[in-house]
Amino acid sequence: MRILLTNDDGVYAPGLRALRSELQKIGEVIVVAPAGEQSAVGHSITLLTPLLIQEVLDENNKPMGWAVEGKPADCVKLALLELLKEPPDLVISGLNAGSNAGINVLYSGTVAAAIEGAFFRKTSIAVSLEYTKPKPLDFSHAAQLARNVIEQILDHPLTEGSLFNVNIPSLEKGPIRGIRVVPQNLAAYKEKFDRRVDPRGRVYFWSGADFHCPDPHVDTDVTALADGYITVTPLQFNLTHAAALEAMRAWKWH
Amino acid sequence: MRILLTNDDGVYAPGLRALRSELQKIGEVIVVAPAGEQSAVGHSITLLTPLLIQEVLDENNKPMGWAVEGKPADCVKLALLELLKEPPDLVISGLNAGSNAGINVLYSGTVAAAIEGAFFRKTSIAVSLEYTKPKPLDFSHAAQLARNVIEQILDHPLTEGSLFNVNIPSLEKGPIRGIRVVPQNLAAYKEKFDRRVDPRGRVYFWSGADFHCPDPHVDTDVTALADGYITVTPLQFNLTHAAALEAMRAWKWH
Repeated sequence: MRILLTNDDGVYAPGLRALRSELQKIGEVIVVAPAGEQSAVGHSITLLTPLLIQEVLDENNKPMGWAVEGKPADCVKLALLELLKEPPDLVISGLNAGSNAGINVLYSGTVAAAIEGAFFRKTSIAVSLEYTKPKPLDFSHAAQLARNVIEQILDHPLTEGSLFNVNIPSLEKGPIRGIRVVPQNLAAYKEKFDRRVDPRGRVYFWSGADFHCPDPHVDTDVTALADGYITVTPLQFNLTHAAALEAMRAWKWH
Repeated sequence: MRILLTNDDGVYAPGLRALRSELQKIGEVIVVAPAGEQSAVGHSITLLTPLLIQEVLDENNKPMGWAVEGKPADCVKLALLELLKEPPDLVISGLNAGSNAGINVLYSGTVAAAIEGAFFRKTSIAVSLEYTKPKPLDFSHAAQLARNVIEQILDHPLTEGSLFNVNIPSLEKGPIRGIRVVPQNLAAYKEKFDRRVDPRGRVYFWSGADFHCPDPHVDTDVTALADGYITVTPLQFNLTHAAALEAMRAWKWH
């Protein structure tokens, strides 16, 4: 099996390195990832400026893939259209430092890279690790768990372009309670900006760290993850509101 | 009616200015838009760096709103949480230079700003103008058409956080053929990178201009727009694949 591995934390991120080691147990892994951190860039792509690339070696000085001065979705496009000699069987994005659940799924560069893989009709899986404290994460254990979930997904017959979002709960909360298949939480998040004044008297704002979902819907990715379960959410990229579409077709337009 | 107006082409873009003039006929318009162009940034948000803001005056030296050194979605967050004295009744994003149909909906900063408005449970509408040639667009006529469609949408009872994507066909193709309510096209796009070599011998890539959908599904935003119709697509931000979710709940996990 040939696996394209990308992320949004950058090619030197420990989460990517840990996941690469695990994925090498089940296939050939080629990394094409952003040269630097690209968190919360959503489905950004680079049209107006060039995409510089650099071959990257691993810890053993063996070729590992490419660093791209671009966004996660650029990396997937470039890998599939230009860099990989043969098409991959699987696109994996992660292991992200921080969960991607609820409406964060739309902000996430990690998930966007997987969606881009699905645009190309590849089976694509985004994998993220929740963190609850700003200290080094146990990526090595999380990557083992991630591989286990990925292997279980691949054990099933999948249609072209199947797309999944996997979140692993913080390992500091205790043992994993199991795996749950859950929908994306749609409840609103609470957020706050810090209002500050610069040395020249100009007002500026800074997004506050306390971005959370005070009232998540039950049985969703946000609640199951909080309860200590690994969450698996199958995704799609049709943003059409089907029920509203039906209703609006009866509207009289002039 | 109080209207928050934003875009991804930046606060000085002619499309925004033209739409502002039209929207002032139906309400009070406050602009909070990126300081510079932010095309194809998708649902990026700015977490790690500060958001500088600047008050902006219009052609008549009257206060028009704020320029934000950030992304379209940042502008909506900042407007709703900090800058606007009273909450708006409506969030409008546009008038974008270039259509946002098919999978481009996911790359679009214009649409992401409207989705952000829907996160806050506001009625939100993204409006884009197709262009077929790289020459100045007739934003003034397109803005009239946009206002007409927006007014018609608002004539109907809407639930909280209703979200719409409107595309206006290139006015160079001839008279508008009507308004059609259509789903987002999901077919793959064809794209190509230019492979080039920099002055120091390093390879780089540049996204090609010929990004198109060779085989769009019938009765979608892409085909109706190509046929000269204004398209209206109701959107939602639940990326869960409902059918796959049901099927996967029967899987045995270990």
